[in-house]
Amino acid sequence: MADVDLLWVIFASALVFLMQGGFLCLESGMTRSKNSINVAIKNLADFCLSTLVFWTLGFGFMFGLSYQGWIGSDLFSLDFAKASPPLAVFFLFQVMFCGAAVTILSGIVAERMKFGAYLFVAVIVSGFLYPVAGHWVWAERLSRRSGWLAELGFVDFAGSTVVHSVGGWAGLALVLIVGPRLGRFDDGSGAHTITPSNMPTATLGALLLFIGWLGFNGGSTLALDETVPSILINTVVGGCVGAISAGGLRYAVNQRLDVDQFINGALGGLVAVTANCFAVSTGSAALIGLVGGMIVVFFSQILETLKIDDAVGAIPVHLGAGIWGTLATGLYGDLETLGTGLSRLEQIGVQGLGVLVYGIWTFGVALLVFSAGNAVFRFRVTEEEEIAGLNISEHGMQHESELPIVERHFLESAR
Amino acid sequence: MADVDLLWVIFASALVFLMQGGFLCLESGMTRSKNSINVAIKNLADFCLSTLVFWTLGFGFMFGLSYQGWIGSDLFSLDFAKASPPLAVFFLFQVMFCGAAVTILSGIVAERMKFGAYLFVAVIVSGFLYPVAGHWVWAERLSRRSGWLAELGFVDFAGSTVVHSVGGWAGLALVLIVGPRLGRFDDGSGAHTITPSNMPTATLGALLLFIGWLGFNGGSTLALDETVPSILINTVVGGCVGAISAGGLRYAVNQRLDVDQFINGALGGLVAVTANCFAVSTGSAALIGLVGGMIVVFFSQILETLKIDDAVGAIPVHLGAGIWGTLATGLYGDLETLGTGLSRLEQIGVQGLGVLVYGIWTFGVALLVFSAGNAVFRFRVTEEEEIAGLNISEHGMQHESELPIVERHFLESAR
Amino acid sequence: MADVDLLWVIFASALVFLMQGGFLCLESGMTRSKNSINVAIKNLADFCLSTLVFWTLGFGFMFGLSYQGWIGSDLFSLDFAKASPPLAVFFLFQVMFCGAAVTILSGIVAERMKFGAYLFVAVIVSGFLYPVAGHWVWAERLSRRSGWLAELGFVDFAGSTVVHSVGGWAGLALVLIVGPRLGRFDDGSGAHTITPSNMPTATLGALLLFIGWLGFNGGSTLALDETVPSILINTVVGGCVGAISAGGLRYAVNQRLDVDQFINGALGGLVAVTANCFAVSTGSAALIGLVGGMIVVFFSQILETLKIDDAVGAIPVHLGAGIWGTLATGLYGDLETLGTGLSRLEQIGVQGLGVLVYGIWTFGVALLVFSAGNAVFRFRVTEEEEIAGLNISEHGMQHESELPIVERHFLESAR
Repeated sequence: MADVDLLWVIFASALVFLMQGGFLCLESGMTRSKNSINVAIKNLADFCLSTLVFWTLGFGFMFGLSYQGWIGSDLFSLDFAKASPPLAVFFLFQVMFCGAAVTILSGIVAERMKFGAYLFVAVIVSGFLYPVAGHWVWAERLSRRSGWLAELGFVDFAGSTVVHSVGGWAGLALVLIVGPRLGRFDDGSGAHTITPSNMPTATLGALLLFIGWLGFNGGSTLALDETVPSILINTVVGGCVGAISAGGLRYAVNQRLDVDQFINGALGGLVAVTANCFAVSTGSAALIGLVGGMIVVFFSQILETLKIDDAVGAIPVHLGAGIWGTLATGLYGDLETLGTGLSRLEQIGVQGLGVLVYGIWTFGVALLVFSAGNAVFRFRVTEEEEIAGLNISEHGMQHESELPIVERHFLESAR
Repeated sequence: MADVDLLWVIFASALVFLMQGGFLCLESGMTRSKNSINVAIKNLADFCLSTLVFWTLGFGFMFGLSYQGWIGSDLFSLDFAKASPPLAVFFLFQVMFCGAAVTILSGIVAERMKFGAYLFVAVIVSGFLYPVAGHWVWAERLSRRSGWLAELGFVDFAGSTVVHSVGGWAGLALVLIVGPRLGRFDDGSGAHTITPSNMPTATLGALLLFIGWLGFNGGSTLALDETVPSILINTVVGGCVGAISAGGLRYAVNQRLDVDQFINGALGGLVAVTANCFAVSTGSAALIGLVGGMIVVFFSQILETLKIDDAVGAIPVHLGAGIWGTLATGLYGDLETLGTGLSRLEQIGVQGLGVLVYGIWTFGVALLVFSAGNAVFRFRVTEEEEIAGLNISEHGMQHESELPIVERHFLESAR
Repeated sequence: MADVDLLWVIFASALVFLMQGGFLCLESGMTRSKNSINVAIKNLADFCLSTLVFWTLGFGFMFGLSYQGWIGSDLFSLDFAKASPPLAVFFLFQVMFCGAAVTILSGIVAERMKFGAYLFVAVIVSGFLYPVAGHWVWAERLSRRSGWLAELGFVDFAGSTVVHSVGGWAGLALVLIVGPRLGRFDDGSGAHTITPSNMPTATLGALLLFIGWLGFNGGSTLALDETVPSILINTVVGGCVGAISAGGLRYAVNQRLDVDQFINGALGGLVAVTANCFAVSTGSAALIGLVGGMIVVFFSQILETLKIDDAVGAIPVHLGAGIWGTLATGLYGDLETLGTGLSRLEQIGVQGLGVLVYGIWTFGVALLVFSAGNAVFRFRVTEEEEIAGLNISEHGMQHESELPIVERHFLESAR
């Protein structure tokens, strides 16, 4: 079989898998100690669950034989021992993408949502919401006809919209249903900053995400073609500029480097170039990352003003910068490389249409389904559980440092 | 030289190397703070030591010219600057495997074993126990004749037995010699749960192990052949199902997700598919992972009942699921792909024989040699040292947070 | 484009990128909790900034058309969408190297240097100091003529000098300007050990660096040629022996394993083989690593005696072992493989000359420029800020565990 293209996509898949570690560190580090075990295990659990759901259902909806460009209709529960190597490698890459889309939600509603309810959400996103959304643009990568948005000329190379905005929109719907954490907006004088447990770990998480993004964007060619090196550099430059842009903007306002905005700026830059890194110059990637970083800062402010409590700032990153990156594809993408045959203005229009369509679909369906779910089995833990922390209330587990002194003493001295 | 097969194995080697980071995080996170530095540095130290021992001795015993199919007899201390690239790449991959086999033991006996004694154990395992065990099945991958078990038709693709059970058996022998931690079974009312220091880090560790397993299983083809994509998917599916199976089983019992059992279930699923991922369907991999996860849960209970104190639950994962995976190879493996010419029943029989043989060899020799070692220089730290913690007693080091307030104050204010 | 050589260098670039995660963990783990957020974000920030500076300026100075073998003069701010794939991949690899060189400095002066001042330093190193230094030896890898030191026959394969010593020299200059941390040498009775916040994380960091080094050294061939496998093994062996050598030496002195010296010994071994791993036998790599580990121990003692306060021990590792590795290239390198046409003695002489030249250049210019910078805007935080910690003084951020009990209570109970 030996084939450098397949090896490249396998390698890229491993990098995207590493992003799960990045999300785990980012989110558990950015949340409070009393919830950080819950956040960490959610990241592993949603990967495990969504992988199985995507294998069973999602992959078929996303890449199966297209029904009118709207939804796939075969390739469910494939036996890959009998599949062609390229198809199996393609699945490997896509299942990692699905995991990334799902895990975006986990951070947003961290610190107050039931573990079981979150798994319900993960099933909905990985089995239906994300795959159908993906079909509309990416079906042609495997299916024998294109998705309807791709046919209109909508371009989203590695998923600023398909992965990141979809995750962000679904997360926004979810956070509206679940509501803000206790104490975040409670005394009327604006938002309380909730101090994260471990920012060095969160920073490591951002770095792991950054590294993984090389695979996320670079592997989306599905071959080691000649655009890969430029894609990788655009990715790195976009992320770096995004960090400095968000960090610089905040520095200009309050004269110090906001660690979390710097981190989220990097991620915002990365999300922003995701849709277009194959079709823009290095300079354009820098510009797109620059705006992406700023959008993260502004979007964070807006959420705070609206009293929407995104525990790790994932909505500004994935939804905010995702929308920008999708539009930027129309604004700066080389038309010939985009290959849609549209004029600049038409391309911008179609990109805007795509943004709108995905917002309506994802936010709409998510709001509907999650509301229904919430009505059946309340998504949110009780106040007592939230105050106690989800480590103990959901998993009966505490950090050693939180044990009562008496018990620690017992364990240390008993024999 | 440019060769995509070699690059694949190099990449796989790096992934297996990453598993050392996984073990480090898993084990230091799952143990108490007062021992976590010791646990972490043991993971690095055993890798460094066993790598040199494997280069000097183990590689020759494992892959050297076979003496009657029992032990290799050349290739000691090779100069790889003069070796062929494929041989050097093969060594690189195998030395990482050896590191994995050794490090399995470190977690089991964490929190009460002397650092120096553990290094002695690492030398025995990497220089003799593991290489000889490996020779019996894997010699043919390099040597000019097969190991005796391979000749009988025993199949263990990537080491459910050769790596994981061997590590598990040796660890079982060691834990019997070293005994349980103080306070774990001391008051007659069953086992005390010893609260881990950092479960988010342990969860990251499990994820790094999961990612590394792509190389562990995928690289075991030693070429980017057409089975690789299916192997990778079977690996991912096996791990995911194992996690959900173990987690679900525990949930059914006590109505909440046990974080450590979920993690170990994932690892159990991964261990279980390790022997057979090249020869089973995706569905079978799911089934094998399902049972693997359950075995982890049952095996943990059994160990607790027997008052065997495995500090991180590595025996259920590596020995329990390892035995299962080896048998499952006979049960579910495609006979043609296994290529042994045996009937289904014969294959199952040989797999069972292999499990038995490895149990006797590894557990027997380990018990003998470790007992002798323990008689010469006691393996276990003193009670005072154990109570104080191995960070301070073995390395004279504490976490900053454990310093007496007076000293912290001094360091902060002194000038 | 599909080309296994390009894929190898891309993979190696990702591994070198992972070293940023290694530095982040190593340095934030080895420093105090009150500064560890600052240390972590410095590691991300210097990567982001230096990447942009290297793209804009440094790459051109390093690999542009050579002016008399002293400095490059084109290739500034390249648009890689229009560049050839090999050039773009080359840039990707080199920009990661630049990041590594810069980040060496961050640990040395941790816990007392202003964030903004450190960014100034990062710009100087990535935009000028490192690229010019690199040009002298590595220009020929891209430029149409060699650097002047390369023309004399100076050999530094993957950068024992070009990356590590340059980082170390610049760090030494910087630490002399910034001075030791409060409390480190203050009462005249020798050095106070400042207890690190998180040694398990630091150990993970060392392991990530080790893994990344496979790409650092292996990728420096810029092709998957036949020397790669031996380079990788020499790298692994050098690091392993270095750890055991430094650890063993300390053990001989004070009868216990010093965790930090073990870690730094591994890194010292890795630095030492970096210059020569392509041209020495596995046995020589072991020897070079052995001495590298010892040098780390001795160099640490010397710094302590001289009251130079290197917060993470990076000067012994990168400067000390870097000098040794450069000389060892002359001592043990296969002359034919070195390919300079010099005799053994001449080669040793030229390697010594290189060490001297880089010391003068890097230390001299760094001392000059950093002193000037320090005169304009003081590099060091105030005593009050240093005592409070840089997390709070530079970023207004604390760990959750450091919050006053009252505030934690409020956040937990308020509604």
